[in-house]
Amino acid sequence: MKKELLSDIEIAQQATLKPIYEISENLGITEQELEPYGHYKGKLSLDIMDRLRDTKDAHVILVTSINPTPAGEGKSTVTVGLGQALHKLGKKSIIAMREPSLGPTMGIKGGATGGGYSQVVPMEDINLHFTGDIHAITTANNALAAFIDNHIQQGNKLKIDQRRIVWKRVVDLNDRALRQVIVGLGGPLQGVPREDGFDITVASEVMAVLCLSTSIMDLKNRLGRIVIAYNVDKAPVTVKELGFEGALTMLLKDAIKPNLVQTLENTPAIIHGGPFANIAHGCNSVIATKMAAKLGDYVVTEAGFGADLGAEKFLHIKCQSAGIEPSAVVIVATIRALKMHGGQAKSELKNENVAALKNGVENLEKHIETIQSFGLPFVVAINRFITDSDDEVNLLLNWCKEKNVRVSLAEVWEKGGEGGIDLAENVLSAISSELNEFRALYNVNESLESKINTIVQKVYGAKGAEFSATARKQLEQFEQLGWGNLPICMAKTQYSLSDDPSKLGRPTDFTVTIRELKASIGAGFIVALTGAVMTMPGLPKEPAALNMDVTEDGKITGLF
Amino acid sequence: MKKELLSDIEIAQQATLKPIYEISENLGITEQELEPYGHYKGKLSLDIMDRLRDTKDAHVILVTSINPTPAGEGKSTVTVGLGQALHKLGKKSIIAMREPSLGPTMGIKGGATGGGYSQVVPMEDINLHFTGDIHAITTANNALAAFIDNHIQQGNKLKIDQRRIVWKRVVDLNDRALRQVIVGLGGPLQGVPREDGFDITVASEVMAVLCLSTSIMDLKNRLGRIVIAYNVDKAPVTVKELGFEGALTMLLKDAIKPNLVQTLENTPAIIHGGPFANIAHGCNSVIATKMAAKLGDYVVTEAGFGADLGAEKFLHIKCQSAGIEPSAVVIVATIRALKMHGGQAKSELKNENVAALKNGVENLEKHIETIQSFGLPFVVAINRFITDSDDEVNLLLNWCKEKNVRVSLAEVWEKGGEGGIDLAENVLSAISSELNEFRALYNVNESLESKINTIVQKVYGAKGAEFSATARKQLEQFEQLGWGNLPICMAKTQYSLSDDPSKLGRPTDFTVTIRELKASIGAGFIVALTGAVMTMPGLPKEPAALNMDVTEDGKITGLF
Repeated sequence: MKKELLSDIEIAQQATLKPIYEISENLGITEQELEPYGHYKGKLSLDIMDRLRDTKDAHVILVTSINPTPAGEGKSTVTVGLGQALHKLGKKSIIAMREPSLGPTMGIKGGATGGGYSQVVPMEDINLHFTGDIHAITTANNALAAFIDNHIQQGNKLKIDQRRIVWKRVVDLNDRALRQVIVGLGGPLQGVPREDGFDITVASEVMAVLCLSTSIMDLKNRLGRIVIAYNVDKAPVTVKELGFEGALTMLLKDAIKPNLVQTLENTPAIIHGGPFANIAHGCNSVIATKMAAKLGDYVVTEAGFGADLGAEKFLHIKCQSAGIEPSAVVIVATIRALKMHGGQAKSELKNENVAALKNGVENLEKHIETIQSFGLPFVVAINRFITDSDDEVNLLLNWCKEKNVRVSLAEVWEKGGEGGIDLAENVLSAISSELNEFRALYNVNESLESKINTIVQKVYGAKGAEFSATARKQLEQFEQLGWGNLPICMAKTQYSLSDDPSKLGRPTDFTVTIRELKASIGAGFIVALTGAVMTMPGLPKEPAALNMDVTEDGKITGLF
Repeated sequence: MKKELLSDIEIAQQATLKPIYEISENLGITEQELEPYGHYKGKLSLDIMDRLRDTKDAHVILVTSINPTPAGEGKSTVTVGLGQALHKLGKKSIIAMREPSLGPTMGIKGGATGGGYSQVVPMEDINLHFTGDIHAITTANNALAAFIDNHIQQGNKLKIDQRRIVWKRVVDLNDRALRQVIVGLGGPLQGVPREDGFDITVASEVMAVLCLSTSIMDLKNRLGRIVIAYNVDKAPVTVKELGFEGALTMLLKDAIKPNLVQTLENTPAIIHGGPFANIAHGCNSVIATKMAAKLGDYVVTEAGFGADLGAEKFLHIKCQSAGIEPSAVVIVATIRALKMHGGQAKSELKNENVAALKNGVENLEKHIETIQSFGLPFVVAINRFITDSDDEVNLLLNWCKEKNVRVSLAEVWEKGGEGGIDLAENVLSAISSELNEFRALYNVNESLESKINTIVQKVYGAKGAEFSATARKQLEQFEQLGWGNLPICMAKTQYSLSDDPSKLGRPTDFTVTIRELKASIGAGFIVALTGAVMTMPGLPKEPAALNMDVTEDGKITGLF
């Protein structure tokens, strides 16, 4: 049951926040280790990791979900709610989440800081400029672009083929007019004309690099390895060859520090990094998760999209790269979304439809099997909506019981941590009583083709991958360049287990077409692109920004 | 005499900074009125202005200079040094300066935070992302651009003529390849193709608007008035008609708050806003200057370029718009620069050349006359360099004495505040003993043409202005649109009193050609462009960024 009275921003603005120094003190963070950004946000010094080098790591709990639908699944809300519930149970819990991107906030989506009584705050700051991390990434990305064009303009010593520059510019906005552009017009003094394009900042490899780095020096090395173009001999050209890895690291020296905030119930939350969940790995930074694991006993973290994309990348890319051993997984589902997976139209979702639910639960089933194949304890969390009928709820609960699957109703939107107590206890019980046999589904030293096939078969349930002629050529080229032992980052539609967004539920008897590969050598993975992936969203006819405003005393309205 | 041993960044990194709370406490700022950004930077709440509404305003001292040359004049260094010297004399002095732009820092120029022992700190932070103000301005500017292209894409209800969009995108970088671009390529789903271009962020009208606003509501109203395009009937289209003035204000709600830092000698400094000194007015924000005037007894502030551009705009645009009554002006000159104005080549400047100095002093003379025509007390500050010979110094001192002009040698680079004591005492004496008859040179209600003629005749020493056919047409059009009573913002080369950068010294018998006008209705001025004005700098063959780096513990090197 959800209160319809207050909007998220109204709830957030009514919260009683503790000064950030109190939150950090409770975590044993010294005054020198916290750089305040206003009264309720702070950056955490990387020195904390040195100080706590020998401290035991916390349990890391990953929150993932079924394939998202327009009906919404509330993964962030459950993440915050579970963190609050563990806190209520007396556990030292810390939430680790991604930073929201401004573009979608101004466009259509609203904020990404949870909802109802399970939000991280100050939500306006987090949803807008926050502590400037994404702006620093935009700046580093675009400085590099300027250095590349300047290198060509000034004689092109590295013989960069201007038709084969793979580094794009970025803005943290939804701006379709920048998807395809021509730059360098106006004659010999204004640069060399060439085709170019802008991505949204969260799609920048700089973001992926920042989120996988474990230290300033690791960041610098990764930035240096980024491939920005191919030269006239088709050999890759790196940032290090250009000589700007130091300057880019300098621009990111503060952005690499995790940000501490709190939830509506004063549970500590570290919000840091927000890579695209498609052409990048879609989880908050490694440094944030590892620091949270040193500071608390339970870390609740999430990954983008459904378990087929987010959890797979969290487990294969982030955990492997950083040596993180997760303790449990929460799979979030809503009855509304499962009914859509079962064939009910969006406009009909408020009406009971047990048959559609029965049909759509197969989507959840596949994600359960995937998490089981990783050898991890898990709990299904049903994020309850007011329109869910008792029969629907009971059907889903019984389905889980029959499968011998742990399940909890989560009412964290309405009740905050209180509404997640059952889920929290279920998770704690899973961690303490179940066997954790965490394992990757592929060995990173297999060929790129083999790793891709493993993902599409074991995680998506496909018969196998098909490769376009381009992708085939790239497989060979990338193996020759010594990139064959990198993990795979799949870029696939989030709406379906397959590569066809219209195939909801649990599609069978399909193959996944790999159209093209992309080398993210700084981040340390090879992106496999299935369909066309949108890396620069557009704005709708009536952007959300039309309703946004500020009162005379600086209070924000219309941000939701 | 200058120590050649330590670089600016080394001196800055050796400084003993006080926690920002100590600096603010000394100014009577409450803990709630200061939002810390790290331990040594803070944003000041606009509530301070309400609290101190009835407090007497401080004396405002403007630091300006002769026409800049590649030899350097050290205006920022003298500004900081004078503030420190007044502090040493027991005065409650506050420095108000502009925020540096990142683009030039990464390109060729190094930082803009003073030099030697007269710097504002933490210099690395101030020169890089600081508190995010410029990033917020970039974001607001580009969000508006995205809204405009989206409006056209979604049906173009306002009938915007896509050939007459005057709103450009920005980045806070030197990136010549973005000067002229084509956006919206790729077919009907990617927007409407059109010519576009990027400026450097400090050239954005959003920056000019922020710097002239006196409150959040004033900011919103000014943003609403910005003209972004002309429609198919050639009528102006404003932000308010698009409906996004609230969202843009929201994006700037923190950027409008002034930033408090300190100098190497712990003198408080407010650093806020940095509009281009050419197509905008080139001074720090009105809010910063007015707040400093409430918090201290003496405010030392500067304006961009020489007195012909910076001081003229400070006095005609900023002071008139904000009701600021300056108490005195400091005109900074270096012997090196005056010798260049007198015909000596840059490579020869280290050699004594009394004749060149005698010849070049006429540039200083003109600026003195200009400040006199504004009715303001003033002091000439000779920013001493190690290469200045005693004969040269004496010639300049004697020249001033003969003219009955106050003059001080400033050795603030080498000695900090101690090196500016004579200058500070001279300024205090000018304020207390001389008549202040501050007056504008034109009445804002005169026609645009008349105001332009006044500036070029009285400030530049020209015979008059000539107008291109385009400019003539615009004069008429702008008067018809009701914009005739706005002040003028001249966009002219900074290197010469004339519109020809090669004419150093004090050119005579020349006219100034007004090529084009530009309406900055949000900022509230009409820009008169003489030659081509570069609003997007390029990078040199070896950008300064090549030498920038970070050590393992996060310390920056190579930023100068």
